[in-house]
Amino acid sequence: MVATTALFEIGMQTKIEATKHQAHAAELFRRAGIFITPVEQKQIETADFGLGEFTQTGLGVLVYVNTERCCAKELAMWPRQTCPEHRHPPVGDDPGKEETFRCRWGKVWLYVAGQTSPVIHCQPPRGREATYTARREIALNPGDQFTILPNTLHWFQAGDEGAVVSEFSTRSRDECDIFTDPEIQRLAKIAT
Amino acid sequence: MVATTALFEIGMQTKIEATKHQAHAAELFRRAGIFITPVEQKQIETADFGLGEFTQTGLGVLVYVNTERCCAKELAMWPRQTCPEHRHPPVGDDPGKEETFRCRWGKVWLYVAGQTSPVIHCQPPRGREATYTARREIALNPGDQFTILPNTLHWFQAGDEGAVVSEFSTRSRDECDIFTDPEIQRLAKIAT
Repeated sequence: MVATTALFEIGMQTKIEATKHQAHAAELFRRAGIFITPVEQKQIETADFGLGEFTQTGLGVLVYVNTERCCAKELAMWPRQTCPEHRHPPVGDDPGKEETFRCRWGKVWLYVAGQTSPVIHCQPPRGREATYTARREIALNPGDQFTILPNTLHWFQAGDEGAVVSEFSTRSRDECDIFTDPEIQRLAKIAT
Repeated sequence: MVATTALFEIGMQTKIEATKHQAHAAELFRRAGIFITPVEQKQIETADFGLGEFTQTGLGVLVYVNTERCCAKELAMWPRQTCPEHRHPPVGDDPGKEETFRCRWGKVWLYVAGQTSPVIHCQPPRGREATYTARREIALNPGDQFTILPNTLHWFQAGDEGAVVSEFSTRSRDECDIFTDPEIQRLAKIAT
């Protein structure tokens, strides 16, 4: 339970905002042809990474399954919304999360550590450019996919219509993700 | 390369039949709202499990990714088509494949080892009833899913319209699957 005063913390999503974002994420899934249940709609995480600029830096996340061994999610992205740069480090015996992104609808530009691409189609969120370092660009249109190896820096941004992306991976341990931007909190609270 | 005489082996799919089945599987995916590329359509496996009765005992399978650690597929099922009973045993250090089925379109009845359900909605393929032993029934409509633990006997059958099912799992090692029916060959050849 977050204290009432938390409502006034800069950038914290209110329950009303989160519910509105959940409805829009469900609508994006619907456009992508993906059926989710009413219960699942309420389970959509509207991650703003603690920055309080959800439609700029954020992600709608529906986790289908996340066991000790594997995980599947749908990601809903608003037009030009960015998932900030991060990596999935080794945790104990686990070499770190391996994940495959498959674009279902719209378009997403993925940036991974490696050789800088000759043309870069996305701008990182304004004021945070220094926290975006990966410049190997991979364009994902519907039916395209890319597998990111563990501990590899990556970030991604939707195109002008937004995007829906399926993620297939080993176990998700979001709390262990390492973000380049020190201001980011992956598991930001929602004001109640 | 299969010898020409193989064309006349009972039940072996011809290339023409397999291509026709691939096209129909792609159409089922389209109905489910799933976009696949033309290249992927040609990669759809039309598994008949060596029985030569594809629309009765079979499965259209599109593998998106299958690494050492995780796997994602789409399954296309014809009306009342059955995937025969099998389990995924431990292999070396791997405790066996764990898989989650999520119904995307149509309906599928899943049967797993455990307590027999009071009502069973499916009949196994005729003449092969003895090779279907799991009788715990789980009905999967769009948006429903179920996780099958390693080494658990299971089989499934589509409803009257057919079905499209997403599978999220640990690594697939189809060649290691153990089927209850000794006549089944998981990796049956296609006549060329």
